[in-house]
Amino acid sequence: MTRPGPSRRVRVRELTGGSAVERRDDLATEEPLEIRLTAAGGTRRTIAITMRTPGHDFELAAGFLHGEGLAHDDGIASIAYCTDEDLPPEARYNTVTVRLRGPMPELPALERHFLTSSACGVCGSASLDALRGRCRPLPPGDLRLTPEVLYGLPGALRAGQGVFGKTGGLHAAGLFTAEGETVVVREDVGRHNAVDKLVGWAAMNGRLPLSGHVLMVSGRASYEIMQKALAAGLPAVCAVSAPSSLAVDLAREFGMTLVGFLRGERCNVYADANRVE
Amino acid sequence: MTRPGPSRRVRVRELTGGSAVERRDDLATEEPLEIRLTAAGGTRRTIAITMRTPGHDFELAAGFLHGEGLAHDDGIASIAYCTDEDLPPEARYNTVTVRLRGPMPELPALERHFLTSSACGVCGSASLDALRGRCRPLPPGDLRLTPEVLYGLPGALRAGQGVFGKTGGLHAAGLFTAEGETVVVREDVGRHNAVDKLVGWAAMNGRLPLSGHVLMVSGRASYEIMQKALAAGLPAVCAVSAPSSLAVDLAREFGMTLVGFLRGERCNVYADANRVE
Repeated sequence: MTRPGPSRRVRVRELTGGSAVERRDDLATEEPLEIRLTAAGGTRRTIAITMRTPGHDFELAAGFLHGEGLAHDDGIASIAYCTDEDLPPEARYNTVTVRLRGPMPELPALERHFLTSSACGVCGSASLDALRGRCRPLPPGDLRLTPEVLYGLPGALRAGQGVFGKTGGLHAAGLFTAEGETVVVREDVGRHNAVDKLVGWAAMNGRLPLSGHVLMVSGRASYEIMQKALAAGLPAVCAVSAPSSLAVDLAREFGMTLVGFLRGERCNVYADANRVE
Repeated sequence: MTRPGPSRRVRVRELTGGSAVERRDDLATEEPLEIRLTAAGGTRRTIAITMRTPGHDFELAAGFLHGEGLAHDDGIASIAYCTDEDLPPEARYNTVTVRLRGPMPELPALERHFLTSSACGVCGSASLDALRGRCRPLPPGDLRLTPEVLYGLPGALRAGQGVFGKTGGLHAAGLFTAEGETVVVREDVGRHNAVDKLVGWAAMNGRLPLSGHVLMVSGRASYEIMQKALAAGLPAVCAVSAPSSLAVDLAREFGMTLVGFLRGERCNVYADANRVE
């Protein structure tokens, strides 16, 4: 078994009007990734399984744990592909083990995803309340963004998308400086995974929190994307497409900047926090 | 508390080149939906919480359960918004209770999502193996699709997207006949939710399995979308954007038709099963 790559070639029949040609086409690879935790005492547990595009798997695991508040800066001792003997070779590159320096976190990640609050059942405001327990609002005005810098981000993101160019089928997340310079770009079939890989890269390189930086995503801005950006200390998020209502609520509540429909020389500023000139 | 609608109006600052105007903008609503099951014996359990756009919530719950193999055609006694006294009013339209005629299903849905197989850990082929336990391949050639019908689907889907027109921020799933006539269109911030709403509509109207029909989705075709279509007996799936590798594997393995990049008068046929002329 070779290690799975980010894309795979298949035969395809292309129809154009009334004619058809057989050709080869590159597809974005989608495979499950299982993230396992091993705590200091030796306790083990599967914390998530996500469909992802292979590549930067350790960053994905580190970023996922950071977004969930399950592992802080120095909380991870090591990350490795699983070498358990009970795993056949074809599953080894789909299972990552994160060794923690401390004990197993108390809250199961899956129940956290439930966003429940015993006081209120589920609703958007309860989800924001739950976040307040572990994320502080960001200081307004800590970053200045000019329209010119904003208008340059989609092109810079696109330039960093190597696999998209081949497949046309991947989401991307890019990290940029206040001057619009590219720091890192990550791709995945899942847009939340692309953000996890980017935040995980920052975590593994001692770059958190990402104050003074901008996150640009290729699709829409949802609650989940904003929550991951907030946990990473990112003050500004830009999206090619629309934000959701709860994404805007989160941005306004936590002092973040949220820009949507960023295409060509135009965009909508949904939350500003004194950062857009 | 009024019932949340599919879109919400906010103030936004629109930048175009160097100028800015304040205006109002409609956003797609994103709120959590909790799906609870009550079994015949009275056992209760939360089976999922998903971020969704309010509207067609009962269909979403019915379609989700069907896709997971947790409730079959006559297995659902009733679906209602939760009226538990411990829920404050603002959470009541975000919680749906499904009463089952039978006992609580054995497998927790969340562990099913893990796609694990004790034999193989996680990998794409194990995911397909797990599906084989509950979904049979579809008979090839049970449907004939002409290129003209295919080319007409994106426009027909777009015509059915009422909320997208306002917000520009929703995924859509449309059900069409072999002649390209629209049966039903559903929208959601989550593309898997749009498909669940569509399948739930069919389940609640005694229309399953959806043999002889075509599903068209506004975005990409992932493993999850294909799995939901297969469980609903849908022989053909068309997507505006790219399919993933595992979506193509699933289609080929289960005798489904999969068409991607369907735009204007062109498309790519990734899996045919003798249905595209």
